[in-house]
Amino acid sequence: MAVVRHGRTGNEGFRKRVVILGGGFAGIHAAMGLGKLPLDVTMVDRKNHHTFQPLLYQVALAVLSPADIAQPIRSILRNQPNTEVLMDEAMEFNLDRREIQLKSGAVLEYDYLVVATGSTHSYFGKNEWSKLAPGLKTLEDATEIRRRVLLAFELAERQMLETGSHPPLQFVIIGGGPTGVELAGAISDIAKLYMAKDFRHINPSEAQVLILEGSPSILAAYPPDLQKKAAEQLAGLGVKIRTGAHVSDVQPGYVMVGEERIDAVVTLWAAGVQASPLGKLMGFETDRKGCVMVDKHLNPEGHPEIFICGDLAHVEQDGKQVPGVAQPAMQMGDFVAKRIARLTAKGLGTDGSGIDRGFRYFDKGDMATIGRKAAVAKIEWPFKAHWSGFPAWMTWLVVHIFFLIGFRNRFSVFRQWAFTYLFFNDGVRLITGSQELSGWVTKEGVAAPVTAAPLDLGSPKSN
Amino acid sequence: MAVVRHGRTGNEGFRKRVVILGGGFAGIHAAMGLGKLPLDVTMVDRKNHHTFQPLLYQVALAVLSPADIAQPIRSILRNQPNTEVLMDEAMEFNLDRREIQLKSGAVLEYDYLVVATGSTHSYFGKNEWSKLAPGLKTLEDATEIRRRVLLAFELAERQMLETGSHPPLQFVIIGGGPTGVELAGAISDIAKLYMAKDFRHINPSEAQVLILEGSPSILAAYPPDLQKKAAEQLAGLGVKIRTGAHVSDVQPGYVMVGEERIDAVVTLWAAGVQASPLGKLMGFETDRKGCVMVDKHLNPEGHPEIFICGDLAHVEQDGKQVPGVAQPAMQMGDFVAKRIARLTAKGLGTDGSGIDRGFRYFDKGDMATIGRKAAVAKIEWPFKAHWSGFPAWMTWLVVHIFFLIGFRNRFSVFRQWAFTYLFFNDGVRLITGSQELSGWVTKEGVAAPVTAAPLDLGSPKSN
Repeated sequence: MAVVRHGRTGNEGFRKRVVILGGGFAGIHAAMGLGKLPLDVTMVDRKNHHTFQPLLYQVALAVLSPADIAQPIRSILRNQPNTEVLMDEAMEFNLDRREIQLKSGAVLEYDYLVVATGSTHSYFGKNEWSKLAPGLKTLEDATEIRRRVLLAFELAERQMLETGSHPPLQFVIIGGGPTGVELAGAISDIAKLYMAKDFRHINPSEAQVLILEGSPSILAAYPPDLQKKAAEQLAGLGVKIRTGAHVSDVQPGYVMVGEERIDAVVTLWAAGVQASPLGKLMGFETDRKGCVMVDKHLNPEGHPEIFICGDLAHVEQDGKQVPGVAQPAMQMGDFVAKRIARLTAKGLGTDGSGIDRGFRYFDKGDMATIGRKAAVAKIEWPFKAHWSGFPAWMTWLVVHIFFLIGFRNRFSVFRQWAFTYLFFNDGVRLITGSQELSGWVTKEGVAAPVTAAPLDLGSPKSN
Repeated sequence: MAVVRHGRTGNEGFRKRVVILGGGFAGIHAAMGLGKLPLDVTMVDRKNHHTFQPLLYQVALAVLSPADIAQPIRSILRNQPNTEVLMDEAMEFNLDRREIQLKSGAVLEYDYLVVATGSTHSYFGKNEWSKLAPGLKTLEDATEIRRRVLLAFELAERQMLETGSHPPLQFVIIGGGPTGVELAGAISDIAKLYMAKDFRHINPSEAQVLILEGSPSILAAYPPDLQKKAAEQLAGLGVKIRTGAHVSDVQPGYVMVGEERIDAVVTLWAAGVQASPLGKLMGFETDRKGCVMVDKHLNPEGHPEIFICGDLAHVEQDGKQVPGVAQPAMQMGDFVAKRIARLTAKGLGTDGSGIDRGFRYFDKGDMATIGRKAAVAKIEWPFKAHWSGFPAWMTWLVVHIFFLIGFRNRFSVFRQWAFTYLFFNDGVRLITGSQELSGWVTKEGVAAPVTAAPLDLGSPKSN
């Protein structure tokens, strides 16, 4: 096993080595926090880009382009001379020797290890559903969802020409969390505002969007008044919601809720997530979703040199689990960078107590958009408030532009939104990838687009 | 066989039906020219978007996004009430009955048929090369080329870490026409200007770009003085050119020129094109490349109701064949629309002689860029001149923004170029699709990225 002494940029042999696995919000924030320290930092991600996940649904629904919300990790960290970026994947760990075996065959040694490999979809053991109901975690997922939604209209138009009728354009979204709600609002908007003018035979504004949510309410993490507002605003867009609906099967063209069959030209998955498998692979105690149980310094038990960040970490605060969204991930990354700075300033072995009181999530609030001009916002800082409708939507817009990494992206997204929302412009409704159109599956009268080359959503993201 | 009476928008049964196959420059221009006539027009394309092909290489080299240079065909033709768009593909023709069998199963009847299904890569019978040396015709091709070029740097970086050396970063472009020259200049720029700062272990500016051209000179269609200028400007970028070099084999990691083996981490194909197979399928006389021999009205022999446009048409003018590029395609589309207008105004059967003198290509000139700030331009109108260097490049910039379809695209491309060229910004260097990294093929010491999921470039574009 070749041991690679990576990232030596000076003071050979004297600088502590930090390896960060995962270039999401937590990993990038950790790396940026370590950028000016006398350490050697190696960021490992199997993709070459950081993705601004809160806007992924806008790529899926053809408002934004992939390049608007993603940035090469190398570019983000380019100006940190102490940091190197590796496009690779962790396969095995030797925690005693503090070594990581990468997929390429190289071995990385570390003094500190930050694991922030996030989460992926969970189909609750029904992995065969993944091709029928894609979820939304990566740019590739987003492009695939876009392809399916746009293709559904094209297929309906063609079937109308051939037979004079087409199956109901019902889009089913499994899961009523923020992603499900945002996808639902966006599909409804696309159908009613943008697609309506484009077809001669079908009426895209008759498209139906249905959210199937297993729990008693959508947006379970939000307070009841905002849940109610969100439901009202969705109803205003024509989106139907069924709560307490447990999906028992997903098939081409339909889903089953108990014994009831519900037609679906496109089914999307926004129901469950599971943590990256690395937590289990490293042998740490995990919760049901695979998140690693950590102490107040985000260390798994017995390993003060290892930090678990972002979605992969199970952090309890005030009796509740810190949610797996962007804000806590960023804050954990920032925390870990500071913690490593303290530990290395004092030398390894010092526990840092008295310096670090431990991680505490500072919740500024949560937001979810509902279509083109509404949202719900639970604001916690700088004041407490529950907003809905247009003011919440404007807040959402400003916050998301602000937090996008990279000026080019900020400008680009701003411009794109201005065009799309103010001028009702086209967005980027390109169907790329397989454009196979012969794949109607007609089962019991319902046709559904079958992907000729479905995205492989099989293996969870590991870094 | 169901006969679909398509696009009836009024005057049922009295309006002539025009079917256009192919939404490239020729087809779109024909459709736009027919937009206000009392005809029923159906545009059929197997993709949902029109692609501005002259800028495809900028998508391939990560300067522009796919959405910047493509526009949904439905959007382009949205405001023409007499036009419908079908995402489908012609499979069979019955010229006597004037019917087209589509892939979906529907049958289209026509009174006039415009066939503008363009061309695709020709590997001169070596179709197995297509996966090893992708060409550049579609957005998917462009994304695939981008993926391979960017991945080559990532792979070299990783191999450097593992073994302390990496195979020479030599990019080989087979074919020295405008596309080959533009790809070469762009790869050289990317390596030297943008990638150089991003890596710690390799030196991207040592990347080599080599053009292999079979004929005695690059840019064979250009006058000798501009060929020379182009070669000088390419040399200034460090691009090497070998003329009279006939490629005898393409393998992972290298190409063979005669008995000589030339290392190539990425091989790109810009050598040959062949026409869409529809010309042969319809039984018309074609040239060696499959282009349909047409008369002065762009009709194949014996079919005054059928028009062949764009790359698919073999048109001779002043003893030379009109080239298969954007300008003549647009002009043929315009011509056909006017011709159909004349014919239908007078009733079918009138040959239109005395009205139409026939198609004549009005050549305004040709341009090819060479990297970030140089180009060669053979200007024919409004004055004759041969330009090279920066003035030619500025001309290229202005002309291409002007001809882009859609204001959003124009604005977007302009902005992107301003960022990229003026501020040395990042462009959109995202690797999407397969990010498989375990695929080093080491043959005789040379490593090459092997695509885990290569693009299927097998079947030529048929509409």
